[in-house]
Amino acid sequence: MEQQLCPRFEKAMELISKRWVGLILFDLLEGPKRFSEMESDLPISGRLLSDRLKLLEKEGIVQRQIYSEFPVRVEYSLSEKGRALEPVIKEIQNWADAYITREEVEVKE
Amino acid sequence: MEQQLCPRFEKAMELISKRWVGLILFDLLEGPKRFSEMESDLPISGRLLSDRLKLLEKEGIVQRQIYSEFPVRVEYSLSEKGRALEPVIKEIQNWADAYITREEVEVKE
Repeated sequence: MEQQLCPRFEKAMELISKRWVGLILFDLLEGPKRFSEMESDLPISGRLLSDRLKLLEKEGIVQRQIYSEFPVRVEYSLSEKGRALEPVIKEIQNWADAYITREEVEVKE
Repeated sequence: MEQQLCPRFEKAMELISKRWVGLILFDLLEGPKRFSEMESDLPISGRLLSDRLKLLEKEGIVQRQIYSEFPVRVEYSLSEKGRALEPVIKEIQNWADAYITREEVEVKE
């Protein structure tokens, strides 16, 4: 086995490739969101969404803002490190628009 | 559950997020390679590499060229659709260089 090809790239790939991380980034690039908003935006369970947000928080990609209102309001947003992934998400979107056919998508629905 | 956020983006994300696809693209962006070269470049088993290459062939991202020499030579390369992923890989590399710390990588080794 060759010594790691590019350790930093591998680590970034591992993170971005985690199921639903791409979609969560896609959603948060629209701006800060409450948990319930993300839950209704995304086709994943609340528990899994909460796990992924904790992971992304630990990785410094997402930050959680607690507003001491009544009831308390919690908002998730991308940190600087998170927003820096926007070009990656944009390039994936460009590629998808150019190369993923309607049939490939309809078959899935 | 909200209707799919962006079906094409989701399908692209699903494909790129498959374990080792990012690294295989990274490797093939250097140019056509034989199976044995890829096997020694990448930290994955031959069987898994073969599975991933079959998937990428089916998706039209990788193409296989057979040279009728003796012994026969088989080379893998990126198709046009595959090469069009270069900006995605480049942006991931840029992000990784800027935001993945040395410690995060050393801890893994």
